[in-house]
Amino acid sequence: MRAVSIVRGFTKHAEGSVLVSFGDTRVLCTASLEERGPAWKKDGGWVTAEYGMLPRATHTRGRREAAQGKQSGRTQEIQRLIGRSLRAAVDLSALGNFTVTIDCDVLQADGGTRTAAITGGYVAMVDAINAARARKLIKGNPIHGQIAAVSVGIHAGRPVLDLDYIEDSNCECDMNLVMNEAGHFIEVQGTAEGHAFRREELNELLDIGAKGIGELLEAQRKALAGG
Amino acid sequence: MRAVSIVRGFTKHAEGSVLVSFGDTRVLCTASLEERGPAWKKDGGWVTAEYGMLPRATHTRGRREAAQGKQSGRTQEIQRLIGRSLRAAVDLSALGNFTVTIDCDVLQADGGTRTAAITGGYVAMVDAINAARARKLIKGNPIHGQIAAVSVGIHAGRPVLDLDYIEDSNCECDMNLVMNEAGHFIEVQGTAEGHAFRREELNELLDIGAKGIGELLEAQRKALAGG
Amino acid sequence: MRAVSIVRGFTKHAEGSVLVSFGDTRVLCTASLEERGPAWKKDGGWVTAEYGMLPRATHTRGRREAAQGKQSGRTQEIQRLIGRSLRAAVDLSALGNFTVTIDCDVLQADGGTRTAAITGGYVAMVDAINAARARKLIKGNPIHGQIAAVSVGIHAGRPVLDLDYIEDSNCECDMNLVMNEAGHFIEVQGTAEGHAFRREELNELLDIGAKGIGELLEAQRKALAGG
Amino acid sequence: MRAVSIVRGFTKHAEGSVLVSFGDTRVLCTASLEERGPAWKKDGGWVTAEYGMLPRATHTRGRREAAQGKQSGRTQEIQRLIGRSLRAAVDLSALGNFTVTIDCDVLQADGGTRTAAITGGYVAMVDAINAARARKLIKGNPIHGQIAAVSVGIHAGRPVLDLDYIEDSNCECDMNLVMNEAGHFIEVQGTAEGHAFRREELNELLDIGAKGIGELLEAQRKALAGG
Amino acid sequence: MRAVSIVRGFTKHAEGSVLVSFGDTRVLCTASLEERGPAWKKDGGWVTAEYGMLPRATHTRGRREAAQGKQSGRTQEIQRLIGRSLRAAVDLSALGNFTVTIDCDVLQADGGTRTAAITGGYVAMVDAINAARARKLIKGNPIHGQIAAVSVGIHAGRPVLDLDYIEDSNCECDMNLVMNEAGHFIEVQGTAEGHAFRREELNELLDIGAKGIGELLEAQRKALAGG
Amino acid sequence: MRAVSIVRGFTKHAEGSVLVSFGDTRVLCTASLEERGPAWKKDGGWVTAEYGMLPRATHTRGRREAAQGKQSGRTQEIQRLIGRSLRAAVDLSALGNFTVTIDCDVLQADGGTRTAAITGGYVAMVDAINAARARKLIKGNPIHGQIAAVSVGIHAGRPVLDLDYIEDSNCECDMNLVMNEAGHFIEVQGTAEGHAFRREELNELLDIGAKGIGELLEAQRKALAGG
Repeated sequence: MRAVSIVRGFTKHAEGSVLVSFGDTRVLCTASLEERGPAWKKDGGWVTAEYGMLPRATHTRGRREAAQGKQSGRTQEIQRLIGRSLRAAVDLSALGNFTVTIDCDVLQADGGTRTAAITGGYVAMVDAINAARARKLIKGNPIHGQIAAVSVGIHAGRPVLDLDYIEDSNCECDMNLVMNEAGHFIEVQGTAEGHAFRREELNELLDIGAKGIGELLEAQRKALAGG
Repeated sequence: MRAVSIVRGFTKHAEGSVLVSFGDTRVLCTASLEERGPAWKKDGGWVTAEYGMLPRATHTRGRREAAQGKQSGRTQEIQRLIGRSLRAAVDLSALGNFTVTIDCDVLQADGGTRTAAITGGYVAMVDAINAARARKLIKGNPIHGQIAAVSVGIHAGRPVLDLDYIEDSNCECDMNLVMNEAGHFIEVQGTAEGHAFRREELNELLDIGAKGIGELLEAQRKALAGG
Repeated sequence: MRAVSIVRGFTKHAEGSVLVSFGDTRVLCTASLEERGPAWKKDGGWVTAEYGMLPRATHTRGRREAAQGKQSGRTQEIQRLIGRSLRAAVDLSALGNFTVTIDCDVLQADGGTRTAAITGGYVAMVDAINAARARKLIKGNPIHGQIAAVSVGIHAGRPVLDLDYIEDSNCECDMNLVMNEAGHFIEVQGTAEGHAFRREELNELLDIGAKGIGELLEAQRKALAGG
Repeated sequence: MRAVSIVRGFTKHAEGSVLVSFGDTRVLCTASLEERGPAWKKDGGWVTAEYGMLPRATHTRGRREAAQGKQSGRTQEIQRLIGRSLRAAVDLSALGNFTVTIDCDVLQADGGTRTAAITGGYVAMVDAINAARARKLIKGNPIHGQIAAVSVGIHAGRPVLDLDYIEDSNCECDMNLVMNEAGHFIEVQGTAEGHAFRREELNELLDIGAKGIGELLEAQRKALAGG
Repeated sequence: MRAVSIVRGFTKHAEGSVLVSFGDTRVLCTASLEERGPAWKKDGGWVTAEYGMLPRATHTRGRREAAQGKQSGRTQEIQRLIGRSLRAAVDLSALGNFTVTIDCDVLQADGGTRTAAITGGYVAMVDAINAARARKLIKGNPIHGQIAAVSVGIHAGRPVLDLDYIEDSNCECDMNLVMNEAGHFIEVQGTAEGHAFRREELNELLDIGAKGIGELLEAQRKALAGG
Repeated sequence: MRAVSIVRGFTKHAEGSVLVSFGDTRVLCTASLEERGPAWKKDGGWVTAEYGMLPRATHTRGRREAAQGKQSGRTQEIQRLIGRSLRAAVDLSALGNFTVTIDCDVLQADGGTRTAAITGGYVAMVDAINAARARKLIKGNPIHGQIAAVSVGIHAGRPVLDLDYIEDSNCECDMNLVMNEAGHFIEVQGTAEGHAFRREELNELLDIGAKGIGELLEAQRKALAGG
């Protein structure tokens, strides 16, 4: 696992604001609390996420999605994954009529931006919900689990935890895992890049992933305790 | 596994045209061969996919994406998955300067549209490439593997293969598997819906999925032999 | 007139679902009943249509309109024509607060897709409205006429009924007629392609068109009686 | 026929610039000559048209299409009709590598904007092509015919020529005719509004339309002679 | 200052309709009164503006923004300026629940289209508001000031008032001024084109601008008196 | 003037990367060098800017422009201003065939984001151009001036330098100044918010603005010397 850092209160306006780093990957995750449920749902609240990459977070400048007039398929896929993962940690009915929006903006990319976003976004979400609880806007505790995410892959024939950009670009297979504090799975997304992977390889990846998740859950707890 | 049917030559213009059914789910997969590589790639060909759902393929009418002016995140996620999966069965450098586009249009939906699309799309793709080989446009055989896809999930506490719409809507966890003829994985995409799933559950799902994939690979071979 | 076939109940979810064929042209027409009137109209219901062409319905693959982010001028022109024509057969005030949406999706194109869509869409609309009447959602019968559509043109100097793609591409003039069971006109849309057409030519085209319409009205009646 | 006026040279930059009035309907038609053929055509030139309505050309303000981010179906249908009609008067191969774009912008609307646009656009197009001929950019004369357009309809049970807004809004049937100097048809577009129209009614409308077209062709000739 | 002309009642439907000319620049300004406030504001009315340039208002044809699917940054900047400027002359709370929309469409461009639009738009707005006052829709007089706009710049080393297109294209610095009848500033927008401008140059430009504004205010008063 | 901080090298991929703070306003400015000139220009390079605000940079969450499918008029106005201002400091012909894109993304907003963006963007641009000079991609020094920007306004009747959000929201008049090291103006953009401002007030604002610009130019020099 690369060096992990979780800095809370990185910006001042958001109810939760976290700068998360996995090595050189740096993602600003803000959690915004708004008093409105989603249009298509009568009762209870909602947790949703949006993801963006600053144009020059990467080696070569990417086109700004706002200027292009649409979000790429990759962006949409990632933000759907983040939202789905974070909802797995929340009892939506206990959220009342609140929507929590997690904005994950990548300031610097070096592999694993989506897993960093989920891991940091969880902390921002907890901060925002706790702020609402402190102000008595929400009763009880809607957070009913802890989740974190990590990437694993096979690079140069060996299983690797938390791939950086170079490893990710050359890996034979790449998997993103979202797991909870009980060691159970929220999401398993594995893709063969070069060659199809065998059941034994899958098992190895799940093993090292679980270990990485353990470290991340610990880092989240330390950060939340430190506030 | 629900009843599977793979009808080749369903429409007359496309180089490959397959109507695939998994139970009441019916997807028209056409493969179009065009002499052009992708703009961002100097050598070799490309395989890509597009996915669409006819507005009334579903219980209630969905809005037409062309009229809304954009494809939903779900649509983009699915078509990216189909394209990625089918590329895993093809040696792109052997495709020459050809692009094969697989259009998967759902005529009737009852769960598993993406896995049916991958399974049927594979057959349409083989037909289109074989047609080009017969016309000597492509030398050698760019197809270097066989792939199929199936969904598995946990419904009412029990593992279920090839979920229909009712099962899918109520399942506790839902996984799409793309595998090849060697029993290796191309894609593993599992999502907890109700509760996080345990390692043992994951293993059970992979076991029944592999069995379903075996049946689908057999159905593909029969269909291709029947031409 | 090419061989005409009208298959009802082609898909299972829609209130009306018809696969119509004029020769090799095949259009799936579904009619969806929704309890809402149009926003701009206080009383009575509405009938509207949407048209789409699957990317590989044609000789060469057309770009998917959903991916391009807009419907072409041709698509809009056609769906406006279909909607206007079908509304001429319905007493909108008797529809109550219902909107019937006719989706016409071309599975295979060989000339005359819009006339096939109108002819098949009429049958789908009748089925949807009758289903609503059977469920007592609508009282009385809002259908107050029967309509069908056919193309006519001058090809190689001779008037031709129901042009296929080859004829349509080379015709000197091309006309779409929508008529009712009384032999009166709902729409007359004639366009000179090669040379301007004379009044006598127009008259000849209207004569053969009326004959074709007669056959189509008969085919509709048979299909509806067969249900 | 309402009072017709055709003022050439209404604005100074365009190669052809005509303010055409049919009664209170006023349309500014400019013809722009650009040295480029259309992308999809190897040889010869092209004639195309664009149509717009100023937001307050009408009784109540319409939304600006540029602000809405798309042209309505009605706008596209009209500009396709104008372009198709004007092309019928031009030998495109004699245009060389030039594209003539006719912009028809409605300053004030009172019925018949598309027929006024075609009639005035023809004069603007002739002016632009003649200017190019005078500058020896084009040899020979690509104009091989004269065309004009008029609307006819049945209002209060009687055939009416050149309907104004009030008549158009209440007519039972509405037809746009584009004809040439030989009295032949370029376009016939008739739509039943209230009731389906009979063959005899169609004939009556064609008769009075032909008379109106005669007057418009004369007005065009006078305007062009007056330059 | 080039010759200025302000023609009221140029079109018949709008509550205020002005054709304003600054030399060869001609802009049609219509003011539309609608009974609705802006969505984001509880009380009082609103004044807003939209700007457009007909495609061939300029030397070479510009692409139609409606066809391109968006307004350019320049268009948006100009219409925001026009709206902001005109609001400075109106007591919005006295407007009641009315929105006045000023549409400024450039028929012919020769420099200074935005300043002509503001100057003519003011007159159209006054006409529309006076019409509403005459109909007792609005009590009191929401117009609490008079404003006009002019461009100034340094061309060939000398300060120039009301630049035409040639001067504007070659100027070293370009400034748009919006001022009221008291000689105070509503907007000052100066941009160095070739070289940065000194404080003395700025002062000179403000001096000649104030003189031009005086003439424009007088022309507005004459036009309004002449109604 | 609020506390100003200019941190170079804030992210690692961009040729120039600056985090600029004016009080609590924090903007990340990256400069990207790409070997391509603009399409519409034969010789020489180009400098352009894009601006964005992270959704939760503000008190309440703003909608993400990429998700909305377009940049607001405000965003476009600001990025045009930034680009225009920075180009005034560069000899474009000396840039060769390079385009420098300055991305200004607001991480936290508290008034003055555009002036901070220009001031920080200048430093990022100098870094990117110097990097290219060090790599001998560019000969000579295209930077021919130094520029900075500040806002000034009248708040509670008194002139204020570098307004924060609270001051900006309540000011009577608001002006953005871009000036160079000689004390000359690149841009002057003043807007009356509450009441029109007098010539003396304008003069006072220009005086305090010049003083603020002096401090900013000094801060830029210190930052650049510190590299």
